Amino acid sequence: MHESGTAISGPFRAPYGRFVVEVLRGQAQVDFLPNALTGVVFTVALFAAGWEYGLYGLIGTAIGTATARGLGVDRSRITAGLEGFNACLVAVACAVFLGPGHLSTALLALAGSALVTVLTGAAGRILAVWELPAFTLPFCLTASALTLAAPGFRRVWHQDAGPAALPSPASGPVSLTLTDLWHAFFANVGQIFFMPQWYVGLIFLAGIFAASRRAGALACVGSVVGTGTAWALGAPAEQVAEGTMGYNAVLVAMALCGVFLAADGWSLAYAVAGAATATAVTPALAALLAPSGGHTFTWPFVLVSLVFLAAAPAFSRLRRTPA
Amino acid sequence: MHESGTAISGPFRAPYGRFVVEVLRGQAQVDFLPNALTGVVFTVALFAAGWEYGLYGLIGTAIGTATARGLGVDRSRITAGLEGFNACLVAVACAVFLGPGHLSTALLALAGSALVTVLTGAAGRILAVWELPAFTLPFCLTASALTLAAPGFRRVWHQDAGPAALPSPASGPVSLTLTDLWHAFFANVGQIFFMPQWYVGLIFLAGIFAASRRAGALACVGSVVGTGTAWALGAPAEQVAEGTMGYNAVLVAMALCGVFLAADGWSLAYAVAGAATATAVTPALAALLAPSGGHTFTWPFVLVSLVFLAAAPAFSRLRRTPA
Amino acid sequence: MHESGTAISGPFRAPYGRFVVEVLRGQAQVDFLPNALTGVVFTVALFAAGWEYGLYGLIGTAIGTATARGLGVDRSRITAGLEGFNACLVAVACAVFLGPGHLSTALLALAGSALVTVLTGAAGRILAVWELPAFTLPFCLTASALTLAAPGFRRVWHQDAGPAALPSPASGPVSLTLTDLWHAFFANVGQIFFMPQWYVGLIFLAGIFAASRRAGALACVGSVVGTGTAWALGAPAEQVAEGTMGYNAVLVAMALCGVFLAADGWSLAYAVAGAATATAVTPALAALLAPSGGHTFTWPFVLVSLVFLAAAPAFSRLRRTPA
Repeated sequence: MHESGTAISGPFRAPYGRFVVEVLRGQAQVDFLPNALTGVVFTVALFAAGWEYGLYGLIGTAIGTATARGLGVDRSRITAGLEGFNACLVAVACAVFLGPGHLSTALLALAGSALVTVLTGAAGRILAVWELPAFTLPFCLTASALTLAAPGFRRVWHQDAGPAALPSPASGPVSLTLTDLWHAFFANVGQIFFMPQWYVGLIFLAGIFAASRRAGALACVGSVVGTGTAWALGAPAEQVAEGTMGYNAVLVAMALCGVFLAADGWSLAYAVAGAATATAVTPALAALLAPSGGHTFTWPFVLVSLVFLAAAPAFSRLRRTPA
Repeated sequence: MHESGTAISGPFRAPYGRFVVEVLRGQAQVDFLPNALTGVVFTVALFAAGWEYGLYGLIGTAIGTATARGLGVDRSRITAGLEGFNACLVAVACAVFLGPGHLSTALLALAGSALVTVLTGAAGRILAVWELPAFTLPFCLTASALTLAAPGFRRVWHQDAGPAALPSPASGPVSLTLTDLWHAFFANVGQIFFMPQWYVGLIFLAGIFAASRRAGALACVGSVVGTGTAWALGAPAEQVAEGTMGYNAVLVAMALCGVFLAADGWSLAYAVAGAATATAVTPALAALLAPSGGHTFTWPFVLVSLVFLAAAPAFSRLRRTPA
Repeated sequence: MHESGTAISGPFRAPYGRFVVEVLRGQAQVDFLPNALTGVVFTVALFAAGWEYGLYGLIGTAIGTATARGLGVDRSRITAGLEGFNACLVAVACAVFLGPGHLSTALLALAGSALVTVLTGAAGRILAVWELPAFTLPFCLTASALTLAAPGFRRVWHQDAGPAALPSPASGPVSLTLTDLWHAFFANVGQIFFMPQWYVGLIFLAGIFAASRRAGALACVGSVVGTGTAWALGAPAEQVAEGTMGYNAVLVAMALCGVFLAADGWSLAYAVAGAATATAVTPALAALLAPSGGHTFTWPFVLVSLVFLAAAPAFSRLRRTPA
């Protein structure tokens, strides 16, 4: 369903309403859902986390969608919201990592939301050779470039110290309390948009269920697998409770069972293995990027999902969803 | 011969015996040889270095091969041992870099040996566009992810300090004694499996000769080129004697002359150039990975061989081996 | 025009003269110009910066072109100078970063100039799937490998300290004087060959205009956009004046308007966006490579141009130049 656009009817038939629906679907496509209602709920969740985040996300999605229109991107992609979700994440990432209150951050978010359209076009064309989707690769590339470059520019970086540091071994307690567990369950969903509050994650999860019960169930499976894997391997409890260890697992579980592979027992097992893998490689990507001052973003989700989907045709047990 | 499977006959016709042969060929395929006898000799070499390494390697290959069977991978690949060699190296790498005596290491080796099957499928499909083999790329990716992530998990990492450090210029003597030279000659072969002992390398070399005199001769050529290049450029004598500067050259020489390019004077010269290049870029990859705490593994071999093979059709002097 | 070769006539009909023209075109192809006169002017510019740089560049181009001939590369590529420009940059980079006066540097420059032919073949074949040119990717890979590996070899590295360091936030004044501005304008062109002197950049610019007024105009546009972007974002004035912030913008502007995309208003706007992007991501690549001791080279140009060109077919407003 990731790629399919639904016909727009009713009060949204007007050009302006049409654009609004595209933007709302763009918000929802962060979780593979071309559903305007889900987009409304996601927007509410972002505003619940902070009005600046809500505003950055909404304007980012609008800029991304408008840029794609202006450059003449294929209409079916725009209608399905596929030109908005990367821009949404780029804009929110700017607010979170560079500070939402600076004029420089707002301008960079605008530029980044437009630029990600070019990366979306490039990633789509390059991955089409293997019939692979781009996922949030355009966002990861843009946000990584922006945050790695930021400390090099004095009008953009407003802190004294830089973020670069050698990675050090994990420390702190690893046993999880009941509170840690249920906080992690919801925070894993909210961290897809960088938000650590459990109630924000709860609203996002409600938005997923509003579009599809199966997607909602798989988000829950992914969240449980992510938390379980992180606990079993001994991730610091604080990180687990904040959702930073499990958000990639949520996305992988949704992507591999039902969205890009036909939902059955085999793809569910494959999705669980992928979700566990994404959780296990999260500190690897953090270690790779730490000395340069970079962030993990959804790199684990993108890389693990691309590898698992690229390999799928080699395994006769797995079937692709019909295009 | 890398891809060809030989019919299995005699006592191994039974399903169980068939699997044993697949596993032994998997061991041998680390050096491009689908030969069960070579697999036996390689297994002996690993046990000679330490019984834990022998056990990890054997079980790793078995898990990788069994996972490929379970997921329904093409039988010809399994029969040729092509689904085992990456898993073997992943399991041995876990033992070497995380300590063989921890339960966590054993479980990670099992998981990694299964997971590498997915990476093998993905790498094979992606590289097929250019008719390139995956070499040990699936192993390098899996082992790099595992070792980079390990310090981030308290139940996996059992040392106080982390491995991350900025690279510093080479120090120590660079002139080689006669002992350094012959130790290096054999250790270059053993370090393909991370083993620095000269007598372990000698057993591995005997295993290569058992399958093919040409492959054995090329392994010797690669070892000499690797040691010579490292000495000429001024690598620390200690590293040269331990084989850490020359193991990639051994693999490149075998891959480029006879296995993937038809063996003649041109491909021999090409293989020598490739072996020297792999030796020269080894410290570059070490420097790239050091700040994150990563290891070089066979990245130099994989990258240099892929580049040299990808370029081959542009050079009218070189011919591919018939498929 | 990047790919087209012109018939050679007059005194250069002899085999020797033919090779001289190929080498001169190779020098000029650093800026996409298969023009021997431009090659002469560029050679003069390098000698004006320092006779060693002139010599390294000229011999590098000759070695690269001769290696391609010896390996049997397609003649049209050699005639157009496309087998020379990466080798030129590799040799000059060796001189600049390892010191031109060491025998080890000279030998490495020779080896690197030959080796880059293999990388050119590989990059060309891999990128052909998407009809993308390799730009200076072979140079970037070779020069990065050489400079990252160099401190690991005692006969190659002649300094006490290594180049690896964690990146730190930008410091120093950011307001530009009039002198900074016009120095930057020319230095941005010279830094394509690593040369910071404004008068060297002026000679290079004259060489570009000698081949094509449009290429010269676009080089000027790129230089202005690069300087403007760097100033707006707050890059240290010293870096801007030396041209290290703007040289990628010069190359991107030339590549995206006229060379690979048909020159019109849309591609001009696209080229300006690309030039600004390349400037903005320059510190990101510097941060990524700093902990390993690497240099930025023309990585920003290569990556941004590949992304913008790969995406172009997705945008109906843009047209490719006829092949």
